[in-house]
Amino acid sequence: MESEPHNKKRSWKPGTMIYPLPAVIVTCGPSVEDSNMLTVAWVGTTNTDPAMCYISIRPERHSYQIIKDQMEFTINLTTDSMARQTDWAGVRSGKDYDKWKETGLTPVAGMMVRCPYIDESPLSVECKVTAIIPLGSHHMFLAKVVNVLADERYIDPATDCFDLGSAGLLNYTHGHYYRQGEEIGRFGFSVKKSKK
Amino acid sequence: MESEPHNKKRSWKPGTMIYPLPAVIVTCGPSVEDSNMLTVAWVGTTNTDPAMCYISIRPERHSYQIIKDQMEFTINLTTDSMARQTDWAGVRSGKDYDKWKETGLTPVAGMMVRCPYIDESPLSVECKVTAIIPLGSHHMFLAKVVNVLADERYIDPATDCFDLGSAGLLNYTHGHYYRQGEEIGRFGFSVKKSKK
Repeated sequence: MESEPHNKKRSWKPGTMIYPLPAVIVTCGPSVEDSNMLTVAWVGTTNTDPAMCYISIRPERHSYQIIKDQMEFTINLTTDSMARQTDWAGVRSGKDYDKWKETGLTPVAGMMVRCPYIDESPLSVECKVTAIIPLGSHHMFLAKVVNVLADERYIDPATDCFDLGSAGLLNYTHGHYYRQGEEIGRFGFSVKKSKK
Repeated sequence: MESEPHNKKRSWKPGTMIYPLPAVIVTCGPSVEDSNMLTVAWVGTTNTDPAMCYISIRPERHSYQIIKDQMEFTINLTTDSMARQTDWAGVRSGKDYDKWKETGLTPVAGMMVRCPYIDESPLSVECKVTAIIPLGSHHMFLAKVVNVLADERYIDPATDCFDLGSAGLLNYTHGHYYRQGEEIGRFGFSVKKSKK
């Protein structure tokens, strides 16, 4: 077994360097009229069954207290056509702006939570908070997924499969936003027998 | 404010639909000679200061007990040139294979943890577990980042900036692997004044 490095690695101080991450817009608040949004990249899936996820938010963010009071939020996936709005909703605060009006995004009444979801998002995930874990700069909201709202534009009518790969999802990597590139393979492709 | 949906959304049962996610290879074990790897997409950053992250693993995975015993692991980012190995290390088990030998990936002795990191990875994140939270199918390992090892190939000698965007990072989206696409903008681009 070889353990001599070929590639020169530089040892850095600890930092947040796990990428690419989804740049999602989290919506919150008790109604369409009284709601806010903020962009989050500290987000992910934590459990398959039951489906669970998390978002981490700084307590000083305007949405923090809204989510803490209501214990619900919605994760809205974003696409390259929503990149400017996604960035803006992460930089600006709901204290200073009506973010729906400024971004032009459309709130729609939630199904299983009171928070509205974003009509333009290809997929929205409605969540109920199960625990809030203070970690330092951020508090982690662990949550159970209670509903998924999927845009029928990306459902193939022939197969009924949802093709999230064709939605043009946005990712966030170390301070930059990127488009989704081309597909390399399906899960399990490395052990599939060749058709040739 | 408009709240009538333009896009027809279908309400699904709850599921794990937050994408794109990084497809990372987690390495674990007390030494180069006695180590394993597994591929994880349930991974992310949970806190900025101090830098913290998580991975979620099924208890039946071979690496689960290794990480639980040692309370350390390393997250290795993957690129399109590592796609086949990344998929394979997620499908197969260290119970049945020497994954280093089978993938041809090169283990290098860790710096701040005992687990080796993957030489071919553009960036490795050494982590110490702070809590294990059982959630159902998976247990979440919350961890503190103790070191980052960055490949100097991606550090611009002129600016000393690390360009992770040029590494060809892999992402995992709803059962498929994708390449990184082109850059759309930097964080904050939506509020920058135009240079024109």
